Formats: sequence, C-alpha cells, structure tokens
Amino acid sequence: MNTPKSKFSEWYNEITKEAELCDLRYNLKGFIVFMPWSVMSMKKMYAIYEKELEAHGHVPALFPALIPEGYFHKEAEHIEGFAPEVLWVTEAGKHKLEERYAMRPTSETAMYSMYSLWINGLKDLPVKIYQSCQVWRHETKATKPFIRSREFYWIEAHDAFATRKEAEAQVKEDMEMAEKVIHQQFAIPFLFFRRPQWDKFAGAVDTYAADTLMPDGKTIQQPSTHLLGQNFAKSFNVKYTDEKGESQYVWQTCYGPAISRIYASVISMHGDDKGLILPFELAPLQFVVVPILKGENKDKVITECEKIVKILLQENFTVKFDNSEATPGFKFNHWEMKGVPFRVELGERDIAEESVILVRRDTKEKIKVKTKELVAKINELKPEITKNLREKADVWFNSKLSHAGNMKELDTVLNKQGGFVKVAFCTDQMDGEKCADDIKNSCQANMRGSLYGNDELPLTNEKCVSCGKPATVYLYAARQY
Amino acid sequence: MNTPKSKFSEWYNEITKEAELCDLRYNLKGFIVFMPWSVMSMKKMYAIYEKELEAHGHVPALFPALIPEGYFHKEAEHIEGFAPEVLWVTEAGKHKLEERYAMRPTSETAMYSMYSLWINGLKDLPVKIYQSCQVWRHETKATKPFIRSREFYWIEAHDAFATRKEAEAQVKEDMEMAEKVIHQQFAIPFLFFRRPQWDKFAGAVDTYAADTLMPDGKTIQQPSTHLLGQNFAKSFNVKYTDEKGESQYVWQTCYGPAISRIYASVISMHGDDKGLILPFELAPLQFVVVPILKGENKDKVITECEKIVKILLQENFTVKFDNSEATPGFKFNHWEMKGVPFRVELGERDIAEESVILVRRDTKEKIKVKTKELVAKINELKPEITKNLREKADVWFNSKLSHAGNMKELDTVLNKQGGFVKVAFCTDQMDGEKCADDIKNSCQANMRGSLYGNDELPLTNEKCVSCGKPATVYLYAARQY
Repeated sequence: MNTPKSKFSEWYNEITKEAELCDLRYNLKGFIVFMPWSVMSMKKMYAIYEKELEAHGHVPALFPALIPEGYFHKEAEHIEGFAPEVLWVTEAGKHKLEERYAMRPTSETAMYSMYSLWINGLKDLPVKIYQSCQVWRHETKATKPFIRSREFYWIEAHDAFATRKEAEAQVKEDMEMAEKVIHQQFAIPFLFFRRPQWDKFAGAVDTYAADTLMPDGKTIQQPSTHLLGQNFAKSFNVKYTDEKGESQYVWQTCYGPAISRIYASVISMHGDDKGLILPFELAPLQFVVVPILKGENKDKVITECEKIVKILLQENFTVKFDNSEATPGFKFNHWEMKGVPFRVELGERDIAEESVILVRRDTKEKIKVKTKELVAKINELKPEITKNLREKADVWFNSKLSHAGNMKELDTVLNKQGGFVKVAFCTDQMDGEKCADDIKNSCQANMRGSLYGNDELPLTNEKCVSCGKPATVYLYAARQY
Repeated sequence: MNTPKSKFSEWYNEITKEAELCDLRYNLKGFIVFMPWSVMSMKKMYAIYEKELEAHGHVPALFPALIPEGYFHKEAEHIEGFAPEVLWVTEAGKHKLEERYAMRPTSETAMYSMYSLWINGLKDLPVKIYQSCQVWRHETKATKPFIRSREFYWIEAHDAFATRKEAEAQVKEDMEMAEKVIHQQFAIPFLFFRRPQWDKFAGAVDTYAADTLMPDGKTIQQPSTHLLGQNFAKSFNVKYTDEKGESQYVWQTCYGPAISRIYASVISMHGDDKGLILPFELAPLQFVVVPILKGENKDKVITECEKIVKILLQENFTVKFDNSEATPGFKFNHWEMKGVPFRVELGERDIAEESVILVRRDTKEKIKVKTKELVAKINELKPEITKNLREKADVWFNSKLSHAGNMKELDTVLNKQGGFVKVAFCTDQMDGEKCADDIKNSCQANMRGSLYGNDELPLTNEKCVSCGKPATVYLYAARQY
C-alpha cells in the first residue's frame, strides 16, 4: 500500500475501497453508500459530539428534510449563497406540486421559521437546539468520498440569545467543544480562522472555521461556527420582549460539525502504509484475537482464546475471534488494514506462561502480558493510543505552519510542503477579495482567514503580498479540498 | 385533561401540544417538527432497537436518501405499490435533471442494487444490514403526528441468505426482537398477523405485521417483517455461487420498526388524565427534585436538594432540580404531565428524618425513603415501572380480543369496544379481497390477517362471515389508523 504522506490521493482511494468504508458504484453522481465499517465509527463520533453538546445545554430536535420555497427565500444573502446547489422536489406521485420544496442544504430557514413561534419572552431564551441529520448540496466541484459529496452527515446546532454578548460567548464555547472533541478525542489538530468577509457563511456576520490539513498538505474544513447577529432574526421575525416590555430581535449563532468529513480527517491523519489506525474509542472493533496454531494441542489454544474473548467481552469491549482458515500473517495484515487497535496473539507457549501477546496497531509494539493483568494493561494503554496519535499529529501539523514575505515565496512553500502560510494582507473586508483572487490564480491558494484570538497585530511597515498596499492583517493561505 | 380511554383523539391532540412533543405549524402539509421532548425518547428507542439488532448480527450502513428512477423501476409490484406516494426530485439549482430521483419511501431498490455487487459466494452470506433513517411517503390519507405523516423515522433491516429456511428463521427472529424490545421494554402488547395476500408489502411473498391497539380500540401497525423470497433477487440479480459451483438467487427478508409510530403507541398506551407516563428507560428526564419550602430554613432545604441531585447524577440518571418560583403543586402537575417517572419531594421535616419522599408517576404512590437507601430503592423500583405498565397494558389489550359469528355481531362489537375481532373467512388468498372489501364497506373494518403461529385450524363447518362460503381461515378484523 502507498503511504498517506507520500502518495495521499492513491492511498485514500485504496483504503476507502480496501477497508470497505464506502461504495462509489451507486448510480447517482456524488452520492456514496456509507458501508458498515465507516458507519460504526461515525456513530461513535456522533455519540461523542452529541454528549458534548448536551453537556453544554443543547437538546436534540428533528426538523423536516424539506423546506418550502417560501421559507427558503426569506433571507436574501442566504438564498443567493445556496440556491445554485439546491435539489428541488417538484412532483408527488403523478402530480406537480404547487410550491417547490428544497431538500435542506442547511436548516436555518426551516428552524428559524419555528423559532419565531417559540420565542416570545426572556423565559424562552436561550434556545440551544441541535439536530443530527444529513444535508444535500448539488456540488459542481469534483466529489471525493467523505470529503465532499452531494449528501453528507452532520450535526447542526442553532442557538438564539437575548444579547450579542451571549451569542459571542456561544461562538467561543463552540470552538472549545471542537477542541475537546476533535483535537482531544479524535486526535485531529486544527486552527480556528475567522474567515475573510468574502468567504463567510451566507447570511452570517462572521464565520469561524476550524481547518486541519490532509497528509498532502491541503486544508480541509472541520466544524465552523457562525455569529449570525440579527440578520436571520430580522428576516424571520424572531423577537422577544425584554424587561422593559420592548420588542427585541434575538442574537443567533449556528454551528456545524460535518461528521462524515471529520471522519475523512481521522482516517487520513492517522493512517499508514498498512492501512487504518483509529483511536480506541472510534474503532468498530477494538480487539482481534488470533490463535497461533502449531503443535498438536490446537483445541487447547482455541479454548484459551475463547477465554480471552470472554474476558474482553465482559469489559464491554468489541472483540472478534478470528478462527478462520487463513494464516496468522494474513490475519495480522487484514486486521491491521482495518485499523483494529489491539491484536491478541495466543499460542501454546503463551498458555504455559499464562500470558498473551498484545500488539498495538499504532506503535506496532508487541507486549507480553500476564493473562490476569490483561484488562488492567489495556485500560492503561487505551488513552495512550489517542495521546500518541494526537502528539504525532500535532508535531506534523506544526511543521506545516510557515510564513512567506511575497508571492514567490508563498508559491514555493506551498509547492514544497503545503500547509498554512502566513502572509501580510491588505484587508479581510470585502475590498480584499480582489487580492485573494489574484493569489488564487497565481498560487492556487485560498485565504483561509486570520487566526482566532491572535495577538499578531499591529503590523508595522508590512505590505500586502498581492497589491503591495499597507497591510492591515495577517491571513493564512492554503490550498484546499 | 381528557383521558386517553374516554376521549382519545382529544387527549392525543392535547398531550402532543401540551408536552411539546411536536409542532404542526411547519408550513408543509403532513410534515411535523419533532420537538426535543419526543426526540430524546425516540433516541433512546433507537439505541435499544439498534443494540438488539446488533446482538443478532446486524451491522449499520447508510444508503442514499435518493433513488435513481432506473433502480426504482426494477421490481414491478414494488413500484406499483409505492409510485403514487413518491416525492420526486427533478431540478438541481437552475437545471432540470436528466433522470428523476425518488426520495426513498423504503430502500429495497437502493440497497439491493448494491447487494448484487457485494454478494458473490457463500462467504458473503448472510448479509444482515440495517439503517436508521427517515423515509418520505406523500400520503393521501389524513395525517396525525407520529401516527401517520409524510416524513417518518424508522429502522429498516435488509437481510439476504443462501436458503429459504434461513430467511424464514430470520422472520421469526425479527418477531422475537419485537417481543423483546416493544413488549418487554416499551410495554406495548401486540399480535403478529400474517397479512392477507391482498394486503402484503409490495413485492413480498408474505408480510407479518405486529399490530397493537390505541386506547380508542383502533389498531396501529408496529414493526412488520417481510419474507421477500427471491422476487427482488431476480429483479436485482442478487446471486451467489453455491458449493456445486452453480449460480443461485439469494433469499431475502426485510424488517421495518417505525420508531416515530411506536413512540405514538408508547405515549397513548400508557398515558392518563394527568398526561404522559413513560418507562424509566425512555424518559428524557428520569427525576425531578422539588423543594418544599415552608419555614425559614429555605437555604438548608435547597442545599439538601442539591445533595440529592448530586447523588442521582452520580448514578448517571437524568435529573432536573426545579427550583423555580412556581408553587410545588404547579411543579407536580407540570412534571407529571411531562411523564417524569420519579419525583423527589424534600422539605425541612424530611431533612430531620434523613429521608425524602419518592413519588412514582405510574402508580402515584408516595414512598418515604431514607436518603442513604435512595439509590437502592430506585434500582429496585425502576424495572417495576415497566412491569406495571406492561401488565396493565396486557390486561387491557386482552380485554379487546373477541370474536364474532356474523357481520352484525362484528359491527356491534367494533362499535362497542373496538379491538381485534376473530371471524371465520373464506380465504386469505387473493380471492378473499372481495369479501374484505364488503366488510370494509359495511363495518369500516380491515382484515388484519391470521394469527402467526396459531393452532386454530382446522375449521369445522364454519362459514365466511361475508360470502357464507366454507371458511378456510380465521382472520382478525379491526378498525385501523
């Protein structure tokens, strides 16, 4: 197999097929079948993210997948941004519908129509609701499984507050949840950028997006959180009566972790030339037990393996006893490719020594463990795997952060190592879009935004790398998916 | 509030609104917004059902929500059955699509197109895959929230086997899972009927459906499992090579628990004139702690309540400390209406006695419990609630089973008490449909089918209640949702 760092695109195509993560042969362009091995991990990712959202006061709801065209048209910037990608339902049975229904590309217009009915007074605030669902966007760009497709799985959280201050605090909380879940638990490093004004979410005041990198140095967006201000509140008439009895528009935020895309990062960031490597908590199967059969006492080995399986199952781990006809070597390769975090090898000699061989997928380390100490050892190693993956990913990610003083340098460093390249830039307001277009044309790079919470200002005597006018901001450029 | 048994329809409309289970004001006929209180219970129901499916060897996958018209048309009976209700996507952005896409009303045609690629040999069998998703059916009948809507949430399991025998065993396993989950855990009694041939799933050989009753005596379908035989295998060319090297069509089954509809049964079967009653494991909130503040030592009571909350949270229960301004009586009513299984009341006198008052929602029983024995008492009572609800439901359900010797009797008993009425019938093969239509016209009742696993045959000297010809089968009639 290729390695993700040397030939990423080939590796990615190979692993998604070999490990049976998806099937691209469904006869609808841009739609994939999510196969069990990926779905089992994504379900765990959903559960972890939902738990975190609920710990921060969110509750789940389910809004219709279809949005009447009338709702959809209420926020002008929003419709302009999404209309080119909307799939429209126009017929039911043999009949043409009177109004078209949009398959939700995102649910602001579906949800805020209801928020205007639900929110009346301060007692109704804050509203913090999420839904786990799929959305549909008829992408014109090339699709790539999990990374970009016309149907993808995400969580969208939509919050409403009495004040701008609370909405801003929510944006910060959204970022902290991303750190806790995606970095700490999924072991994916990222940076939070405030997107330039020309690249924000359609209808938002400001967009903050977590960008990570793929092994080829190109960036891919993880969750984004948007300060919507009162834009949608005004379009959808979402108001509350304040203490003085006056009618006020709410302040809103929305947050969108795309689980299927974060999954793409997990498999790409951690994988190697043997295949998948997964954090223990995301693995569909956590243990494979492989009998090493040599002598005549095969039954004894099988029986001992079954004992080990039972011990592991009692701990609520997921376990496969691979007692098939294949050779141990074949089994090792197969389950390493599938990313099973631990392999337990057990032969006759091990029985005599009352021990097993425990093999870590991430480090390939082989550890001899006394059977009676097996569970304790596993509980000690479990968090070590995530920690190891995270530290390795962090080191690599940080090596991909650089800066450039001019366009030529920018192009050189992007060609050499990709990653995020800091450059001085005229402005991240709408006026800067022309310079961003120039950089896109000459370096195939996008301006991802300014670093959130940065203390890099004020700039002194710096010039915009594109137009040469005095710079007002540092922006980070990257080639993107 | 009305009671479900006396004025069901009024009660149902009232409780779905009052308890904030759904909102009907979304501007799309037949589509509802599933609000947090229902979604939190449905998520638990999904988790319980998925666990049971996985314990029986099923794995999850996610197939596209859209089905190309070409796939959809492959099985003739199937398309005939579903075409009148299909929502069609015909446009993307500003463009008309070359082929229409169906929003899945069910996923046989999406999934079996892939199964034909995935299944080649015996090593690929059995396939046991489920997906948790929503489906869309543009119903022409009147809609009612959770009971019948144009978008509903279900699980669909689609299995393929080498032999008919295995497929038949799967149908039986599907029924056993329904018993274990819906009857044992959700406390909903039902009967499994083999549907008459004219009322089976479009494309199936046989349909077995679990029917329960609503408090007004009308029946509502719970999960159904279908023996598909080789019908779809032939249409979709799903084959494997057997031991002799010969190509064989697989035998298939599919299974569909509609979670949103089962939820309708849960709230209707167990509710009373105070509102919802929920099994402990399905309740969004399991405990509400209410301080009884009378004397001057309010702080002391609050502090003690907080201690109780902490104890309950440590057990991973969901707990609300209702420390709002409202009176205890108001709080009692509110949380009873919401179906919270346990209320903990705590006043100054209780502190002195180192005890609390624990109130069960299902029996209204008030139990004085020593604080240090609280957790043990709860763990003792938890399963008692489900058991009590189940036994009560069983008694009532069984009182609704009856028989009738002729049409007049049938109509009388249906008017009097509803439920399932056993009648002798000419045949459950296609020829019987005319008699079924007659009964529908004269008694507004549907023939739900013959009891699965019944030993009621052979009939002697019985005549069909409709045509008077010799009867070959007992069928059960009921008015239905």
